[in-house]
Amino acid sequence: MRQNHAVDCPFKPVAGGITAPMGFRAGATSCGIKNPEVMRLDLAMVYSDYKTRAAACFTTNKVKAAPVRVSSQHVKNGDVRAVVVNSGNANACTGPRGIADAKAMTKSAAEHLDLDMQQVMVCSTGIIGMPMPVERILPKMGELTMGLSSRGSDRAARAIMTSDTKPKSYAIEVECDGCVFRVGGIAKGAGMICPNMATMLAVITTDAAVELSELRRATQAAVDQSFNRITIDGDTSTNDTVIVLSNGASDLPLIKSKGPCVEIFRAALRRVMMELAKMIVRDGERVTKFVEIRVKGARTHNDAKNVAEAVAKSTLVKCSWYGGDPNWGRVMHAVGYADARVREELVDIYFGGVCAAKGGLPSGAPMKELEKITRKPQFALTIDLNLGEADYNVYTTDLSEAYVDFNSSEYSAAVHAKRQQGLV
Amino acid sequence: MRQNHAVDCPFKPVAGGITAPMGFRAGATSCGIKNPEVMRLDLAMVYSDYKTRAAACFTTNKVKAAPVRVSSQHVKNGDVRAVVVNSGNANACTGPRGIADAKAMTKSAAEHLDLDMQQVMVCSTGIIGMPMPVERILPKMGELTMGLSSRGSDRAARAIMTSDTKPKSYAIEVECDGCVFRVGGIAKGAGMICPNMATMLAVITTDAAVELSELRRATQAAVDQSFNRITIDGDTSTNDTVIVLSNGASDLPLIKSKGPCVEIFRAALRRVMMELAKMIVRDGERVTKFVEIRVKGARTHNDAKNVAEAVAKSTLVKCSWYGGDPNWGRVMHAVGYADARVREELVDIYFGGVCAAKGGLPSGAPMKELEKITRKPQFALTIDLNLGEADYNVYTTDLSEAYVDFNSSEYSAAVHAKRQQGLV
Repeated sequence: MRQNHAVDCPFKPVAGGITAPMGFRAGATSCGIKNPEVMRLDLAMVYSDYKTRAAACFTTNKVKAAPVRVSSQHVKNGDVRAVVVNSGNANACTGPRGIADAKAMTKSAAEHLDLDMQQVMVCSTGIIGMPMPVERILPKMGELTMGLSSRGSDRAARAIMTSDTKPKSYAIEVECDGCVFRVGGIAKGAGMICPNMATMLAVITTDAAVELSELRRATQAAVDQSFNRITIDGDTSTNDTVIVLSNGASDLPLIKSKGPCVEIFRAALRRVMMELAKMIVRDGERVTKFVEIRVKGARTHNDAKNVAEAVAKSTLVKCSWYGGDPNWGRVMHAVGYADARVREELVDIYFGGVCAAKGGLPSGAPMKELEKITRKPQFALTIDLNLGEADYNVYTTDLSEAYVDFNSSEYSAAVHAKRQQGLV
Repeated sequence: MRQNHAVDCPFKPVAGGITAPMGFRAGATSCGIKNPEVMRLDLAMVYSDYKTRAAACFTTNKVKAAPVRVSSQHVKNGDVRAVVVNSGNANACTGPRGIADAKAMTKSAAEHLDLDMQQVMVCSTGIIGMPMPVERILPKMGELTMGLSSRGSDRAARAIMTSDTKPKSYAIEVECDGCVFRVGGIAKGAGMICPNMATMLAVITTDAAVELSELRRATQAAVDQSFNRITIDGDTSTNDTVIVLSNGASDLPLIKSKGPCVEIFRAALRRVMMELAKMIVRDGERVTKFVEIRVKGARTHNDAKNVAEAVAKSTLVKCSWYGGDPNWGRVMHAVGYADARVREELVDIYFGGVCAAKGGLPSGAPMKELEKITRKPQFALTIDLNLGEADYNVYTTDLSEAYVDFNSSEYSAAVHAKRQQGLV
């Protein structure tokens, strides 16, 4: 049965997250980074027992956090044995001290693991503009490396959470040419999620061996088709990072751009990233709906993308979803201001399978049927421009009152907490 | 004393709004456009006793409401004697029937005023995608024209309100070369307010005589410096229209592009539009703060504009203002993803006069001083990129829980109301 299943669909979901691929270990510990009085898991590590080939994508924001600057240098060598990730502080807008702190974290990890510091990458997530409390992190590095385990994925996934309500982890086993390899990953998201790598971190591992140039290409392509297709609030952050480590611990021969199994590998990487991306959207800060926007019939790929993103980012459209309101007129107005060729009299809009507007006009569908869709916690919105063949999908959420409340006092609260602790 | 005052500042605020300029009359009536059981003022008219020169700016949204399509044709002749404005229905996404309805409104007004229908413009504001109830509007046109009065500005300003909480009206008297002219206006805004003429309507009158080419240039320039500098939620609408009517009823000689008084006229038009624009922002749907964003030190005008608009449109930044939170890190991240040249280590951020970040790093200013600013209902946020000489200002608001709630069920509510009335 399992064999048949594998033939029908080559991807079999498996447990183990980032440690599902062979030769990877992970772990986490508590440093009190955000608040020394509240010890929760906030420092994670992913480690490969073997030499790796590594690829990464970083934020396009011109304000780049210190760990982004340091890690983008370290990944250039292509051999990354460990990734250190902390939550609770973004180490962004922290100047030369921030760079020194990020380097100190890689150096400390490297010493404990007997590696070169260039073989260690670092990611941070949390508040912007506060100095990194390395004095609370570095003393815990030994404990962290000692605790690395082939069952440590879940702890690591928990340690990188900020406002996430659930750890995000996914892994698959893949058969190809009679061999088996695995791809696994963990991610954190929530808030500031938008195409172009908004505040989200993901670390992906695979025990397939992949040629470095192919790994880089496949990573960028998979990110474009997964993490860059999700948006919660249209903001892009200073810290976004996706890292892929390939250690070749499986028995599969080296995957090359024109060799066997390359298509399956690319699809597997895309699948893992897509599953993690959807988990991020579903767990958006205090939002209540998961909406897939499908634009079709556009003249060009860019037209389709611009329409999808304009609708996904419209606060008025997002508010209407929050109320379960099938307000297709607001969708029309967002379509109309997108940077794309649009002919109003050709636009069709569907909620789920029900046509709300045909040729830019009310379809006459009963309100009850439309509301039956938009009141669901998850639905698809299809926009057919009827001008061409290009399409584009994004995954997004509504905008809730709780989101606004939740995001209204982060900085004040952080500073006041520090003051109470006598730290400022 | 009044003469001295006029010398120091050539603009003297006066009462009378759109009927402050000589030779203009206005009025309003109730048609029950939104709901026939709730009779509120919802149909307004502005009328000039004399031949005019007219100019207008319309929405850049590619989905254009029927009244926008009809009025943009009618203004081409340059002589517009009357403007009819309704609230409660946008007549957008209504197809050929919508065009016929908009034309019927201009035709009916023209018949009652003994004008050609091309001399009448029409504006609509309200819900998108519902047929215009002209059967309730046309029978009231006679009453509307009979009620036109040189004291009718306030009723007209009230009739064009939708979710606005206050009527918006402003007028000034201007001395130039020993003569006096007046500029007055009414506007409606609230919700979907954004640069590029978001859902806002304004009608401006002046009794100065202005050459048509100059009037068109001055109108576009004044709109760019006022209504296009305000944003509440970043959405642009299907109906935005600014109309300027010049009837020459004052004793001032014709204003030409290179003649005397032209600079004063341009400044007067800008002043009236700017005051109306600020009133619109202050009355944004259920928002609690009025924020002026001043970007300076940009390399180019476009860089300054893109940074100001990115910050003004960031939902995370707007949420932080709602909480009175001086979260300059979120401002930095929005600056970083704007399409502009930015060097993180040069960026200074000020709330009011207090520096929050210097060279991209925390300034060390006490939190209490920063919060004293951000907790005010109105403050300025200054971003100095320190890269050049270009600057740009926008006026915007926070994003509140009440805004989300208020915008979550417009369409459902409208359809259910119609159903209750037995109209669908």
